[in-house]
Amino acid sequence: MKLLSPEELEAALRDIGARRYHRLHPFHTLLHGGKCTRGQVQAWALNRYYYQAMIPIKDATLIARCEDSAVRREWRSRLVDHDGEREGDGGIARWLKLTDGLGLDRDYVTSLQGLLPGTRFAVEAYVRFVRDKTLLEAIASSLTEMFSPVIISERMAGMLANYDFVTRETLSYFDKRPPQAKRDADFALNFVKCNARTPEQQQAVLAALEFKCTVLWAMLDALYHAYVAPKQVPPGAFLPEDY
Amino acid sequence: MKLLSPEELEAALRDIGARRYHRLHPFHTLLHGGKCTRGQVQAWALNRYYYQAMIPIKDATLIARCEDSAVRREWRSRLVDHDGEREGDGGIARWLKLTDGLGLDRDYVTSLQGLLPGTRFAVEAYVRFVRDKTLLEAIASSLTEMFSPVIISERMAGMLANYDFVTRETLSYFDKRPPQAKRDADFALNFVKCNARTPEQQQAVLAALEFKCTVLWAMLDALYHAYVAPKQVPPGAFLPEDY
Repeated sequence: MKLLSPEELEAALRDIGARRYHRLHPFHTLLHGGKCTRGQVQAWALNRYYYQAMIPIKDATLIARCEDSAVRREWRSRLVDHDGEREGDGGIARWLKLTDGLGLDRDYVTSLQGLLPGTRFAVEAYVRFVRDKTLLEAIASSLTEMFSPVIISERMAGMLANYDFVTRETLSYFDKRPPQAKRDADFALNFVKCNARTPEQQQAVLAALEFKCTVLWAMLDALYHAYVAPKQVPPGAFLPEDY
Repeated sequence: MKLLSPEELEAALRDIGARRYHRLHPFHTLLHGGKCTRGQVQAWALNRYYYQAMIPIKDATLIARCEDSAVRREWRSRLVDHDGEREGDGGIARWLKLTDGLGLDRDYVTSLQGLLPGTRFAVEAYVRFVRDKTLLEAIASSLTEMFSPVIISERMAGMLANYDFVTRETLSYFDKRPPQAKRDADFALNFVKCNARTPEQQQAVLAALEFKCTVLWAMLDALYHAYVAPKQVPPGAFLPEDY
């Protein structure tokens, strides 16, 4: 292990994104290419809801570990983005507009009863990582946001072009995210470039991003297995009408 | 144990405040009555700094346990109050104006090197309580804020009248707190009145407030022991010039 310059560290992080980010997952190829059934899109939105709902818990977990008031203040904006300034505002509420628009019952979605176990375990592993690893690794695990503006623009274009049951209004979550994700990713990237000062810390940062890519990837594996092929829905999980 | 009405529960909480809140502690009698030396006031501000600095960590710990977006959003205002909107803003920064005004070196204060072990252990016990108990108990443990506007007005009046080394400017922390504390206490009181629905939950709420009173009391016991009588400063803790 050698010490990387900050620029080399950033390049290594971007290389992980190019190879491991869930943009490359076959489920996304189907989703963005208009090849999903309505039921598969529903299953995706329903499962992804749990990830969205747990993001503020993950971010508060990170803030609770952080002794620097300035870092806490910066990270707090993520709570604002997801929980909003008032009822009906924020990322979670906008995600529920998507599940509404896809014809899912809101109480069923938020009850988490239809969730795939694979989604639950992956999301919980992410929250646990942020709670238990070093603050540097916790911050580094957020760096998938570096790659999210591209996937979001592909998703918006692909879904609007291909699905008549999807509207710009139901996709309003994605309209808001790119500038937030860019601001957050810029902060986190700068933080790890400044604070990963030994080869061991840099390797831990890279491993944290790989871990997070694994979390996102595993969520899509679970969806693919249950709803695309071999189409084996675990007992109790969501069954689309068109299944 | 019988089930209390919400009004009876509130009355029982207020009764705990009347009997156990640290307004009654002998150290506060000295502090607010102008009977402390400058060194004793310094020791108080330096030790209390740790409490202030850990409050956002305590509050983020609570938010991280909270599945309700609306409660998280409400609780988030506490992070804003303490960490502020920008550098130099917020309760922690205002507390450092107080320690500055008392002639304490800021780096020494924030290093926590001069802290009494009793302060450290009490504050840590509070954060642990909020992390490990039920969310209802965690919220109930904040209810000492119900009693803080009175103690703050006594403190402001007493300290300004009695200490020539204290100015309105150095006490700016306390100017801001009463409306924040009232808003926060109203929310938390309403929450426990609505959510403590069994005798067991109500007793847990009352015990949580007693616990929190104990935390605040223990911090003043440690100060009294070290700096008033028998004046035994633990090894390594702050030694005032006038000691």
